[in-house]
Amino acid sequence: MKKIILLAHCPDKPGIVARITNFILERQGNALNLEQYVDAKDNIFFMRLVCEFENKPEILNNIKVQFQSIASDLQMQWQLYDPNKKPKMALFVSKYSHCLYDILGRFSSGDLPIEIPIIISNHTDMEVVANRFEIPFACIPVSKANKAEAEEKQQALLQEYKIDFIVLARYMQILSKDFTEKFPNQIINIHHSFLPAFPGAKPYHSAHRKGVKIIGATSHYVTSDLDEGPIIEQDIVKVSHNNSISDFIAKGKDVEKIVLSRAIKHHVNRKILVYKNKTIIFD
Amino acid sequence: MKKIILLAHCPDKPGIVARITNFILERQGNALNLEQYVDAKDNIFFMRLVCEFENKPEILNNIKVQFQSIASDLQMQWQLYDPNKKPKMALFVSKYSHCLYDILGRFSSGDLPIEIPIIISNHTDMEVVANRFEIPFACIPVSKANKAEAEEKQQALLQEYKIDFIVLARYMQILSKDFTEKFPNQIINIHHSFLPAFPGAKPYHSAHRKGVKIIGATSHYVTSDLDEGPIIEQDIVKVSHNNSISDFIAKGKDVEKIVLSRAIKHHVNRKILVYKNKTIIFD
Amino acid sequence: MKKIILLAHCPDKPGIVARITNFILERQGNALNLEQYVDAKDNIFFMRLVCEFENKPEILNNIKVQFQSIASDLQMQWQLYDPNKKPKMALFVSKYSHCLYDILGRFSSGDLPIEIPIIISNHTDMEVVANRFEIPFACIPVSKANKAEAEEKQQALLQEYKIDFIVLARYMQILSKDFTEKFPNQIINIHHSFLPAFPGAKPYHSAHRKGVKIIGATSHYVTSDLDEGPIIEQDIVKVSHNNSISDFIAKGKDVEKIVLSRAIKHHVNRKILVYKNKTIIFD
Amino acid sequence: MKKIILLAHCPDKPGIVARITNFILERQGNALNLEQYVDAKDNIFFMRLVCEFENKPEILNNIKVQFQSIASDLQMQWQLYDPNKKPKMALFVSKYSHCLYDILGRFSSGDLPIEIPIIISNHTDMEVVANRFEIPFACIPVSKANKAEAEEKQQALLQEYKIDFIVLARYMQILSKDFTEKFPNQIINIHHSFLPAFPGAKPYHSAHRKGVKIIGATSHYVTSDLDEGPIIEQDIVKVSHNNSISDFIAKGKDVEKIVLSRAIKHHVNRKILVYKNKTIIFD
Repeated sequence: MKKIILLAHCPDKPGIVARITNFILERQGNALNLEQYVDAKDNIFFMRLVCEFENKPEILNNIKVQFQSIASDLQMQWQLYDPNKKPKMALFVSKYSHCLYDILGRFSSGDLPIEIPIIISNHTDMEVVANRFEIPFACIPVSKANKAEAEEKQQALLQEYKIDFIVLARYMQILSKDFTEKFPNQIINIHHSFLPAFPGAKPYHSAHRKGVKIIGATSHYVTSDLDEGPIIEQDIVKVSHNNSISDFIAKGKDVEKIVLSRAIKHHVNRKILVYKNKTIIFD
Repeated sequence: MKKIILLAHCPDKPGIVARITNFILERQGNALNLEQYVDAKDNIFFMRLVCEFENKPEILNNIKVQFQSIASDLQMQWQLYDPNKKPKMALFVSKYSHCLYDILGRFSSGDLPIEIPIIISNHTDMEVVANRFEIPFACIPVSKANKAEAEEKQQALLQEYKIDFIVLARYMQILSKDFTEKFPNQIINIHHSFLPAFPGAKPYHSAHRKGVKIIGATSHYVTSDLDEGPIIEQDIVKVSHNNSISDFIAKGKDVEKIVLSRAIKHHVNRKILVYKNKTIIFD
Repeated sequence: MKKIILLAHCPDKPGIVARITNFILERQGNALNLEQYVDAKDNIFFMRLVCEFENKPEILNNIKVQFQSIASDLQMQWQLYDPNKKPKMALFVSKYSHCLYDILGRFSSGDLPIEIPIIISNHTDMEVVANRFEIPFACIPVSKANKAEAEEKQQALLQEYKIDFIVLARYMQILSKDFTEKFPNQIINIHHSFLPAFPGAKPYHSAHRKGVKIIGATSHYVTSDLDEGPIIEQDIVKVSHNNSISDFIAKGKDVEKIVLSRAIKHHVNRKILVYKNKTIIFD
Repeated sequence: MKKIILLAHCPDKPGIVARITNFILERQGNALNLEQYVDAKDNIFFMRLVCEFENKPEILNNIKVQFQSIASDLQMQWQLYDPNKKPKMALFVSKYSHCLYDILGRFSSGDLPIEIPIIISNHTDMEVVANRFEIPFACIPVSKANKAEAEEKQQALLQEYKIDFIVLARYMQILSKDFTEKFPNQIINIHHSFLPAFPGAKPYHSAHRKGVKIIGATSHYVTSDLDEGPIIEQDIVKVSHNNSISDFIAKGKDVEKIVLSRAIKHHVNRKILVYKNKTIIFD
């Protein structure tokens, strides 16, 4: 049997699920897990469907084309995924290692169904980590002066390695509008605050100054608005008056890496739909 | 329009969702929220479906009968609910007020779509609370000697008030097997520990002796096995070495009342299916 | 034996603890729980000390005066509390009942060592709740035009009932600078967001628009800067894409009431020191 | 200046803090952070004190001897630590890498003030990880037949590398009573359940069978009673009916590694006292 994942949304009207599940049934498929809901305000139908078919080319090869005729009729935006095909992820890092180690540890032990063809950094600090895990490392320094040129080099690498999506694992440069618009909902960032509190630089310092009792981290898709893209996952940890800024940073690191890795998992397991700068996560 | 909630499970096979959604479509209904999943191990199909139909008697009156023919064919166990019909809940209490106040506060402010025709207790302590909220209170003392007789009186009241389900809000008596079997998955209990840790009496004392760093509460449906029924909801709170047993009890009360109220909400919103002593919660 | 709680802070220098504990020892007292820490950045010494003395007037009557000479020498700001004396709390409410029920439930069952002589509201909605718990209720409507006059009436009541501190249990008016400065660190507010995210009005609406995955609540002392006073306690709850604004509000209510009650407990148990718009909580 | 950490407990009586802080003052020292509390039930005084002295040998060299005379008088059990001296930690592993990677990642980036002279395993699987971080790896297979002999080899290594404490990072063998008694409160284990629920083997399988809604992890000191030693740290993560056993394992791994690393930090920062099979954690 062959599994397929469908993510789709369209204007709601009666009979959409019936039509899709009939389509599957006619091809001797079976729905294993269907989650659907209607946004009442905008009247939009959202669906994630895992189904399986017999592994016969005459069925599978035609599904995409045949489904398109239903989808056009429903004005549906949709995507079919093969859960057995590992997406290729590029890692962007700067000087911090905690998210990088966390991702590479999971990757090494087979817990993340991805390939990591390349790690790109604007500094050389993380080269030793890349080497430990035997992953190609490219250092592309970025300055105000060379930013456009540096992004060109980055994008050449992404193309060369046929990268499907990008993870900014505490990458400390802001990508240009031009760059981010080439990868809509394909760049995942981890921001070290509970957004929308403390966007921008040095959020732990701001949190400490403010005297908050909880700090957090936020993973989100990157858009051209800094720290404003669709939020994927957030989590928090308690802090107290006797925690220094370095305690905030140390506690925060643990949240950052877990929150980023959860976002990567949701992304590669095709559990995320984006609609109007918000995520629908079928979990 | 008229909303209906369907909870159902049956042996899995291809085409179940198609069949049900076709059924709805044929009656000009619309699926608003469908959640379905297949237990791979036991090959069981589970579904919660919220759908709406035009509010016409010729449609609504026949749905139950017509759906039964599909259901029989699929060997489906199912239940249709009208979300606008408020279920009648009986509250059983003893001497603690925190869960009782929490439930009655929510009820009074319209946050719980239920009716509470009766509060039953084996002690008189909570009568003052019942009076404050103007809810009938029945004191039925329970002892070893009179237990069977007391349960008869309780059940007479449940019948008189046409009770749909029962909530044990820190009721400190054990219901007989005979009693619990009359209300399968219709009695919700709150146990003041993180089950299966510390079942039975005085869990906070045991937790304190053990030196745990987290305490919890568990709401579950009551079966004839004490503290062994299907778990609905659990939550925890951190404790430390400088918390006394009374601190455990005070912190625990806050978790107990929240966990119990969440379970009641899930129950009355028809989000719970029970299968093989476990709950499926469509949330 | 007679317990006393001391909260104190002063510029740090060697020997402060020794001096204070010697003071206690000379009066045959015993330190039961001492927590002390030094803010390294500002070089400030903070301390909470629970100690007990024999219940003899010749000891207790003189302690305050005698301790003042040490305190002056150390430039110490300090406060002695008698844990057996219940502080008098005024409750300010508007139209929401969840925090009010939560506080009154705890109060009724003896879980809060306070007195509640008066509930003040700008609306009549909560009068029924006050009546249920037999607590005097004063309705003082507030409008732009009569605000100064209304606050005068409120303050007259606070004086009449010898109020020690005020809790704004979802009171929906902003107190004037004049009012708040009369009660420094004696007015506790609950704000229904995870501050500094979403200050001001309608935070759940803003959170929903933003698509956050976690919502929160913040209790803080009120200063003349709206939602900017020293934070006492914060907590959060997870939300998802399929939660509506009313789901946010319902889930948020549970966090609000718990976070507010924890702040009240910390306050009445004398666990809070305020320094430079931040709280030190000895917990 | 030179920092020193004192952990101590003794029968309570008036004047202990005064005596100790006088002792510090007489040597021109300063208390930076003092936490003290009295277990009311057993009448035991517990204290953690961070203090600093001028870095003069005539002060520091004599402190231990001079303090012993106070300690003897108070029947105090105590330990002085130099926070700048990194303890030597041995890591025991078997086949799982998540805790190992987490610890080594922190270690590599300087977040853990320890040395790791040796990783010991009963399998060869983790040798590649040890090599990546350039840490000596010893494979000592363990079977029923050779257990005593294997432990002798392990202990020879511990002696050779002058190991101060041991971390069992999902080491899947049970240490003998003889072994554990040689390292009282110096062996930290991570158990993959929320103890006392699900001790022993395969806790995630048991948790899944039981249908719990929360799973957890527990770090504790190892004693001769399996999974019964003093608990250091616990945390949890929510699970739902649609999580398989492998989902439980995947979610649990994240909790295990965080909970184990927190325990290691508490241990090396000298924040833990053990008394009567419970920990006092000054955090």
